[in-house]
Amino acid sequence: MPSVHAISYELLRRQGIAKIFGNPGSNELPFLKGMPADFEYILGLHEGVVTGMADGYALASGKPAFVNLHAAAGTGNAMGALTNAWYSHSPLVLTAGQQARSMIGVESMLANVDAPQLPRPLVKWSYEPACAEDTPRALSQAIHSANARPRGPVYVSIPHDDWQRETGDDARHLLARELHQAGAPQVAQVEQLALRLQSANNPVLVLGPEVDAEQANALAVALAERLKMPVWVAPSASRCPFPNRHPCFRGVLPAAIAGITEQLEGHDLVVVVGAPVFRYHKYAPGHYLPDGARLIHVTSDADEAARAPMGEAYVGSVHAMLEALLPHLQPSERPMPEALPAPGGVADEESRMAPANVFEAVNALAPKDAIYVKEATSTVEIFWERVEMRHPGSYFFPAAGGLGFGLPAAVGVQLARPERQVIALVGDGSANYAITALWSAAQYRVPVIFIILKNGTYGALRGFARHMQAEDAPGLDVPDIDFCALAKGYGVETVCASNRERLEAALTKGLAMDAPLLIEVPTLQT
Amino acid sequence: MPSVHAISYELLRRQGIAKIFGNPGSNELPFLKGMPADFEYILGLHEGVVTGMADGYALASGKPAFVNLHAAAGTGNAMGALTNAWYSHSPLVLTAGQQARSMIGVESMLANVDAPQLPRPLVKWSYEPACAEDTPRALSQAIHSANARPRGPVYVSIPHDDWQRETGDDARHLLARELHQAGAPQVAQVEQLALRLQSANNPVLVLGPEVDAEQANALAVALAERLKMPVWVAPSASRCPFPNRHPCFRGVLPAAIAGITEQLEGHDLVVVVGAPVFRYHKYAPGHYLPDGARLIHVTSDADEAARAPMGEAYVGSVHAMLEALLPHLQPSERPMPEALPAPGGVADEESRMAPANVFEAVNALAPKDAIYVKEATSTVEIFWERVEMRHPGSYFFPAAGGLGFGLPAAVGVQLARPERQVIALVGDGSANYAITALWSAAQYRVPVIFIILKNGTYGALRGFARHMQAEDAPGLDVPDIDFCALAKGYGVETVCASNRERLEAALTKGLAMDAPLLIEVPTLQT
Repeated sequence: MPSVHAISYELLRRQGIAKIFGNPGSNELPFLKGMPADFEYILGLHEGVVTGMADGYALASGKPAFVNLHAAAGTGNAMGALTNAWYSHSPLVLTAGQQARSMIGVESMLANVDAPQLPRPLVKWSYEPACAEDTPRALSQAIHSANARPRGPVYVSIPHDDWQRETGDDARHLLARELHQAGAPQVAQVEQLALRLQSANNPVLVLGPEVDAEQANALAVALAERLKMPVWVAPSASRCPFPNRHPCFRGVLPAAIAGITEQLEGHDLVVVVGAPVFRYHKYAPGHYLPDGARLIHVTSDADEAARAPMGEAYVGSVHAMLEALLPHLQPSERPMPEALPAPGGVADEESRMAPANVFEAVNALAPKDAIYVKEATSTVEIFWERVEMRHPGSYFFPAAGGLGFGLPAAVGVQLARPERQVIALVGDGSANYAITALWSAAQYRVPVIFIILKNGTYGALRGFARHMQAEDAPGLDVPDIDFCALAKGYGVETVCASNRERLEAALTKGLAMDAPLLIEVPTLQT
Repeated sequence: MPSVHAISYELLRRQGIAKIFGNPGSNELPFLKGMPADFEYILGLHEGVVTGMADGYALASGKPAFVNLHAAAGTGNAMGALTNAWYSHSPLVLTAGQQARSMIGVESMLANVDAPQLPRPLVKWSYEPACAEDTPRALSQAIHSANARPRGPVYVSIPHDDWQRETGDDARHLLARELHQAGAPQVAQVEQLALRLQSANNPVLVLGPEVDAEQANALAVALAERLKMPVWVAPSASRCPFPNRHPCFRGVLPAAIAGITEQLEGHDLVVVVGAPVFRYHKYAPGHYLPDGARLIHVTSDADEAARAPMGEAYVGSVHAMLEALLPHLQPSERPMPEALPAPGGVADEESRMAPANVFEAVNALAPKDAIYVKEATSTVEIFWERVEMRHPGSYFFPAAGGLGFGLPAAVGVQLARPERQVIALVGDGSANYAITALWSAAQYRVPVIFIILKNGTYGALRGFARHMQAEDAPGLDVPDIDFCALAKGYGVETVCASNRERLEAALTKGLAMDAPLLIEVPTLQT
């Protein structure tokens, strides 16, 4: 009979998993020993980076990503990154090594005591098999659970003496397992929804990250064009679900109750697809909806639907719902919305660029299908104005606002999408939460262009400090960091570009490279 | 009536807390706004570093350290560091900002959903007050709980709209609260224990970190000398409870069941004070105790006592127990143990030092009361042989083996003990888990000498790979890192010292500085 080790690798292979993102310790060695040659191990120097790389890989590939962490300390280090994976519905299969079964209870070093408790509440499912024979089945459950809608991270803790044990005969059934999700929308529901849309006087479409995750972007465009609807992106956008130069595009909704209601004023029907209702951030109380507006919510996440404070929800695949809906809709007689005006020019200072001009330069030189991984939180709005995104999977932002996503996620996205150029735009505050991702980029020659916008402060926090009258708070600035030296320390080539000409030269160089490049750009505070 | 903000700062002040270790986000601004001038904020660029600095500060000062983290992502980032704080019984008062109360349920950005769940099982107590008026009391409970024996980390999640609210009148009672721990050992117990010790033919003393934490080191010396007992340090030592050049000193017990039993062979009584029984690590099954040996266990941690697989436990203060015991003991007629022989010389290679010689150089030049923060796990045994430690609080090692402790803990220890030189000895694998601690050291001019032992590999893991026949496992090496460049990136002065002469010059320079110095030393693999 095969060993737990052999059947587990075969299971991963059958499920299309060929990369292991990890940072090993002694508990993990029996799993990594004899890793088959068709698997690739991607080492990160910190588990936040490991998980961030896997998160980017899962988001960009649309497939479960496999992570192997070290017991309790390694899992703990990963948990900041898990906040983002949880809210981006990222199918991460997290595994962690555990002490030998007989050494757990006595709390030996590296025992992960009460292991399934540790990653909660940031996982869909968390488990430690009660015996070695159950370990392959637990891995099978983990993969299928992570991948079932709504997707999300799962966790399995595996004692290191399990791997060499024999499985039972019936473990072979695991290799053949598949989990198909049915649940096409009911015809009556589709007809009802179509009628509401068609009969609204002034409907508006609000799109969330699930539209992009399900590659329903083209369906959303068709829907908007059919009904001549303005389209907003739901607040705190972690993906780009709609081409942002399309005439219907209106921008990203502000992340505040009062701000959203103000923007949606005048609409009698708000159709939210593939987003929570809503991911507010700034505390600005007000009414949830404009007077007279009705909200319809389409999401695959029943919890998202249940917790919303308003609206009527349809729970199911957003792709299937949009696809079913379109044939029922007649083109509207309304005029098409007019495209947003191009934003005006802004001035740089000597040796310090305006973020708008950084983005203009990037937009001018980047390939049309470039992928942007963005973690410069104070410049999100400016970015959406200045950089055109055309294709599904063009934009990734930390879904829970957890910093440390940008650098490693960019590496993971680029590993998943070698045919598209990944450009990471990361603030100098954010970059420090996962700086060692540069080492992985260098070691595996992952040709991401990392642009560090260096303004010496936590820019988004400075904005909040103004909003909250808390500008005297300590700890808002991050001076005296030399990212070119840091990149050199981890083996990544660098350029410091303090004006547009130099930035363009650096971008041109980076686009031609088959290895990563870090560009440090001193920027103005916004 | 005072605000929650005012009464909380007054409470911290009365409890002797004047430093706030933190990394802020928007949820934390209302707490940090108007921070009184007698408080100091120590910013870390990653929450693992923030928590590591606070951990070092709490361990070295013996007092609760206050930490302010950012909601779910910030708390998550801190959880690797929490594994060490949990096992070192470090009294960390962790607080985290939370969204405004009305914005939590809807899962706004930065809402910490099910916040008390998040840090479990790595905290003694975890709580989110159900209303603003309860927040000062919750902070009071947190401080007293963290500090009550057995000490440990606690967690309080505080909605950001609480700080401006008024407290009730009775909040003033909190300011006067004190928590005294009684529990002197019972006379009958002490007499019984004394009789056992006195009547043993060949007793051995095994000391753990709690002896050092309770500053019972001199009592342990007196006990060993009175009964002429050999003294071992309990396995996986996180502190140094006994002067390691004392004639009774025998070394650190190996962290394996079979190994411990082998070393304790021939003893009829094993007295373990202030350590779990035992923190094994390597899987080497065997008998827990030599035949005929009896084990007595003194600890303040009832859980530690309860989970041990053998022995008779006395639960209470180890300091009080040793103090009460000594007057009952007559000097033994046995001869004093003989001091361990000095270890022999080892050879360096051209441009690459043997770790033993690094430690010899440090031992020769460091002040006699230097404090060592050690996180180069493959060289622990060599370090204990080569470096003399005389005083309480001379040695700190990650208590759970969680990497990322060394650099930040050294900063925290030095902040707590400005009168003693802190020398951090950190492996090139370990250093990357918390590299941004260098920035905090530079910004606050904390004059730690950081020595990076650079051998290009996870050395301890290489050792385990040999033990477990897993040398083909991927991810064991960490090549191509330039720590001098990294230190420069974060504003720390550096020297690369590839031979003993250069290392001595660098140490001499560092000892005279009032700012941090990083010394990169290429070392041989052990």
